[in-house]
Order: sequence, then C-alpha cells, then structure tokens
Amino acid sequence: MKFNLIKTDGNARACLLETNRGLIHTPVFMAVGTVGTVKAMSPDELKEIGAEIILCNTYHLYLRPGHEIISSLGGIHKFMNWDRPILTDSGGFQVFSLSALRKIEEDGVHFKSHLDGSMHFIGPKEAMEIQSLLGSDIAMVLDDCTPYPSTYEYAMNSLYRTIKWAAQCKALQGKEQALFGIVQGSLYEDLREKSIEELVDIGFDGFAAGGLSVGEPKKEMHRMIHFTASLLPTDKPRYLMGIGELGDVLNAVEAGFDMFDCVMPTRNARNGTLFTSRGKISIKREEFKSDRGPLDPDCECYTCRNYSRGYLRHIFLSKEILSMRLNTIHNLYFYFNFFRNMRKSIIEGIFTEFKTKWEAIL
Amino acid sequence: MKFNLIKTDGNARACLLETNRGLIHTPVFMAVGTVGTVKAMSPDELKEIGAEIILCNTYHLYLRPGHEIISSLGGIHKFMNWDRPILTDSGGFQVFSLSALRKIEEDGVHFKSHLDGSMHFIGPKEAMEIQSLLGSDIAMVLDDCTPYPSTYEYAMNSLYRTIKWAAQCKALQGKEQALFGIVQGSLYEDLREKSIEELVDIGFDGFAAGGLSVGEPKKEMHRMIHFTASLLPTDKPRYLMGIGELGDVLNAVEAGFDMFDCVMPTRNARNGTLFTSRGKISIKREEFKSDRGPLDPDCECYTCRNYSRGYLRHIFLSKEILSMRLNTIHNLYFYFNFFRNMRKSIIEGIFTEFKTKWEAIL
Repeated sequence: MKFNLIKTDGNARACLLETNRGLIHTPVFMAVGTVGTVKAMSPDELKEIGAEIILCNTYHLYLRPGHEIISSLGGIHKFMNWDRPILTDSGGFQVFSLSALRKIEEDGVHFKSHLDGSMHFIGPKEAMEIQSLLGSDIAMVLDDCTPYPSTYEYAMNSLYRTIKWAAQCKALQGKEQALFGIVQGSLYEDLREKSIEELVDIGFDGFAAGGLSVGEPKKEMHRMIHFTASLLPTDKPRYLMGIGELGDVLNAVEAGFDMFDCVMPTRNARNGTLFTSRGKISIKREEFKSDRGPLDPDCECYTCRNYSRGYLRHIFLSKEILSMRLNTIHNLYFYFNFFRNMRKSIIEGIFTEFKTKWEAIL
Repeated sequence: MKFNLIKTDGNARACLLETNRGLIHTPVFMAVGTVGTVKAMSPDELKEIGAEIILCNTYHLYLRPGHEIISSLGGIHKFMNWDRPILTDSGGFQVFSLSALRKIEEDGVHFKSHLDGSMHFIGPKEAMEIQSLLGSDIAMVLDDCTPYPSTYEYAMNSLYRTIKWAAQCKALQGKEQALFGIVQGSLYEDLREKSIEELVDIGFDGFAAGGLSVGEPKKEMHRMIHFTASLLPTDKPRYLMGIGELGDVLNAVEAGFDMFDCVMPTRNARNGTLFTSRGKISIKREEFKSDRGPLDPDCECYTCRNYSRGYLRHIFLSKEILSMRLNTIHNLYFYFNFFRNMRKSIIEGIFTEFKTKWEAIL
C-alpha cells in the first residue's frame, strides 16, 4: 500500500492510498459490513455512491461462517462480491463488547461466542491467521481495548499487553496484507505517547487510535484525539477506530486523522433517522404523510431523486425491506458526500469554514 | 388497452396487451407489491429481470397510507416509482382473508382493519373510487369471494351479489382504466356458466376467475380452471387470480389462461426456499456450507452470476437483508424466465413438451 500526502490545511490532511484493489481518497469513511455485507446494500450500490473501502468484522466472520470456509470460497472479496479494498479489525474489540464471557491472559483472550455459547481463544497468532485467510487488504493487530475508566496501573498493564501483541502480529505479517498498529493508553497522555513510540519502533503500514468513545466525556475524547494525532508519523495513514459521529469526525480530521468507520449511518437508516443538509430527521413523523418533496432537497442520491417523503414514511411504517434499502442508500450517500466535500475543503484550504458551517447544522 | 391474440397451441395462448404504460406479453406473471413495493426489490431490479406488470392490493393501500394520500402524492405509479402497468385488486379478497371481522350486506361489506381495529365499509362504489384515485391501469370489480365448501344455494346467492356489484362497478368505470370482471360460482359448473354469461353481457376489458385455490382439492380446482376457460371470450385477457404454483400455472395455461399473480416466489425467497432448474432447494442446508457453485448452474440472474451457495447460506443464516434481496431476485427471475420460455413454447407449438418436461421437475 502506497501512501501519498496530497495536501494539508492546518493539521487536516488530504491523502491518497494506493492499494492493489484501488485508490482510497482520505479523509475516508468506511461503511461497516459486519458479517460480509453492508446491511441492506448491494456491492453495486456501494460503488455507485462512491465507497472505496469497507470494513468487515473478524470476530463475526470467525464465528460464522468461519475463516476456513471463507478461504475455501475464495477469500472475503470473492465471498461477498466486493473487489475494492477491505479492512478487517482484529476481533479484539468485539470480544470485549459482544461476548458473554471473556478472560484476558498474557497470550490472548478466551471468550464465549454470543451465537452459541461455545468457547474460543484468540491471540496475536490467531488474529493474524484468521485475517490472512480472510484475505483483507488491511489487517489490524490484536489489541487489548482498555475500558473507561481505568486506573493508571490497569491502563499501563493493558498497554504493555497491546504492545507485546502488536510485535507478535507484526512478525506474522504476510506480504500481501497491510498491517496497522493500534494506540492505546486510555486518557493518560504519557501512556499514549509511550504507545506510539513503541508502535513506531515496531513499524506499521498505518496507525490507529483505539480505546476512545468507550464512555469517556466528549471533551476528554477530543483532547486525546488531538494529542494522539499530534504524535503520529505524518507519512502513514491514521485511523480513528469506531468513531463516526460527524461532529467528532470534524474534530478528528482537524487533528489530522484520515480514516473512520461507524455503524451510525447504516443503523440510523434502518431506524428511520436520516441525515440531511438541514440536520437529522425522523421519517416516521406525521407531518411527512402527504409530503411530495424529497428527503433532502440538496441531495442527489437515488432515494432523493426518485421518492417522496410521503412514500418513504409509508414504507417505513409498513416495515418494508425497501425502506431500509432506500434509507441506507441515502444516509451512506450523505456520509460519502460529506467526506468528499470535506476533502475538497482541505485541498482548497478552507477546512475551517467547512467545519464551522457543519457544526452549526449538526 | 388493446388485446392481440398472437398464437394458440391447443387452448394455450400467447397474447400481447398494449397499454399506455407498456406492452404485456402473456402468459404473464405479475409480481405482488402489496403495499406499494414488491418486497425486497427496487423498481429498477424488477425491470432488469423483465417485470412488465405488477399487482398492488387495494385493501392494504386503502388502510395505509390511504388512497387520498396516494392520489395527492401523484397516484400509485409516481408514489412507488414504477412507470409500467399496475393491476389493483378490488380489496374484496383481503377483506375476506385478513380482516378480523366482516359482514357482507347486499350493498357491500363492513370490515374491521387488521392494523388498528377500525371499522370500514367497501361497496362497488367505494372499490371503484379507491382504485380510480390510486390510478392503476387495470382495476378489478368488487366480488364476493365464495368460500369452499359452499352449498349450492349459498354459492348462488353469493354469485348474484357479485354480478350485481360487477354491473355497478362497470357503470362507474373511468376511461383511463381497464376493468376486469370476476367469475365466481364455486365448484358448480352451471353457476360458473351463468356467471360468465352475465359478465359478458355487462362487458369487460378482461375476465378473471376467482374463488379458486380456496381449499378445494387440486383435481377440482383444475377441473374448474378448464371448464371456466373453455367458456370465456377468446378476444379478451383471462386472469386466474392468486394462483401461481407452477404446476397449477401449466394446467391453467393449457386451459387458456393468460395472467397470474402469486406471492409464492417472493415469500419463498424470504424463507430461503429457492426455485431451480432441478427443483426447489432450501438454502440453509448444511451441505451448501462450502459450496462454491451458484444456486442454479442454468440460471443467469444477478444472484447466480455473482454469489456462491456458501455465501447465500451464510447471509440467510445471518438474517441479512441482502439475503432476502438476492433470493427474491433469483426466484422472480426464475418465474419470469419460466413464463418467457412457456410463451416461446406456445409460439413454437411445443407447449405440451414444455409442460411435460417441467411437470417432471416441479
């Protein structure tokens, strides 16, 4: 994977990543395709609205259908009919957030499947082996996601585990796959700094910030986002994991982050909450009953070009599958368009105006 | 609507219906778009697989969002973004099958909404007014769907009600909308004959057979299908309502029916039951876990061109929306393809071979 820094505006960056499966223009939003499909969307629709890379969850794919099966079916790209880049997480975060029972040990984590209660173990070796068989373009190291709040001592021990695992993952990296390290350290600046030093020493194709948006106050989160970004190498992509609320994205891009993922646009779509150029709306509102206008008059997505709010309200209340499809197309289009315009503003040197304008709307 | 009889093979017919919104080649299968969307499909996808006409349910649209709202949103075509022909039923059948409580009177039927328990009344005048405001291309008369079994006396009274309502509907027909009469008469040949005589006297743009597939033995159903078809005018389209199992379709086409609708291909798709050139399969079967092959090696639909059975099994078990989409595309493509090939066999004079071949598979 080749990294090109195209333009900076303050600390905000517009970059270009070149991969064997296509270009990635950053800042980039990665739609989440948890089990091998971005919910409600087809790969063609994702391409049509401009998705350049998607994220899949190793934890889910490992449990079902299993990485060996995906490998035997030709790897994750062929499996899900998506020929552009795919980033897989390491599974660590989902083990912490989804499994009923987990036990962290020095060499990895034991956990109970949320699907059938069966017991499993993932260590650095397993995380790399699974991601290698999946065949993603970008793999993530296994990390120990430090919860909030954590004592300094707990955060430090957790961080050293993450660093040790990162080195073990690095040693197992195949040449076909990029590998990103993950910065931990909770809200302790010296630990975050230590984390980055060690990861840079090991050497990765990109660096991610983890352990944020795990319950800490927004102000603290933004402080750590800026602090972390300021220490990361400038010549590698920077990925802020799991954060995708647009207000947070604006802050993180300002700080110098490049890559983002979040289930919010797709999950909100299925719940009838839609992003527009005038703020969020709930499509089920009574006032839309006879509304002939599009969801967002400023939007050019398939949904806004072809359907009225009245129809979208009707199929949402009728729980129709097409409702989830049309809402998801709109929300993802809105996100991709937001990111494209954000990138443009960086290239034109007017990112601050872009940020100010959107902070008033969001 | 202009009717052209293109070719007959025995009693089987290949016809061409010309409407203001496009051509309909018969025998034709109408996918069901109950509340204004064919479940899981977009209009573009329906066109791509060759849908020429769809059916919407008046009962559902009347209750939600309401015909006045659809009218104010530009009519059913604009509402649902479908510019090809639409047939609406009269609502009668759903009143009988879905509403919690119904009371048939001489001038119409009182019923309780299955959505909120509210009370409603639909008579011939209301059925025509609702369908006129929806703006469908083909409207159906309100009929009293005679249940099975019925005594001769009950069936006769029910039939006379249907004939009276049909005449009242006919008197209210607008010039923009075709109107089909509905033959009733239960399993009594003289009543079916009487029904057809009266409807032909009134004069309709097409004739439908109702009151079949309501619990009677298959053999009886096929007997009535053949008997009814033999008496219907040859210069108008003939529609066999609600029947779409392919074995029954073959029999009905042999008898001379032209139009069909059924929720089976779409409903089965969502339940993971898929039609193939070698018979039905259930996609959830364990044996498909690592199966790299397409659903149906002889199928050229989007699903079969792009996805393996292994993937389709995985997303079905994961209850993903894309599963319902891909399965529905396949099943509808299979149906449309079946109907296209059946038409071709009639034009080539080899319908009997077509029927024999498929009866061995189905």
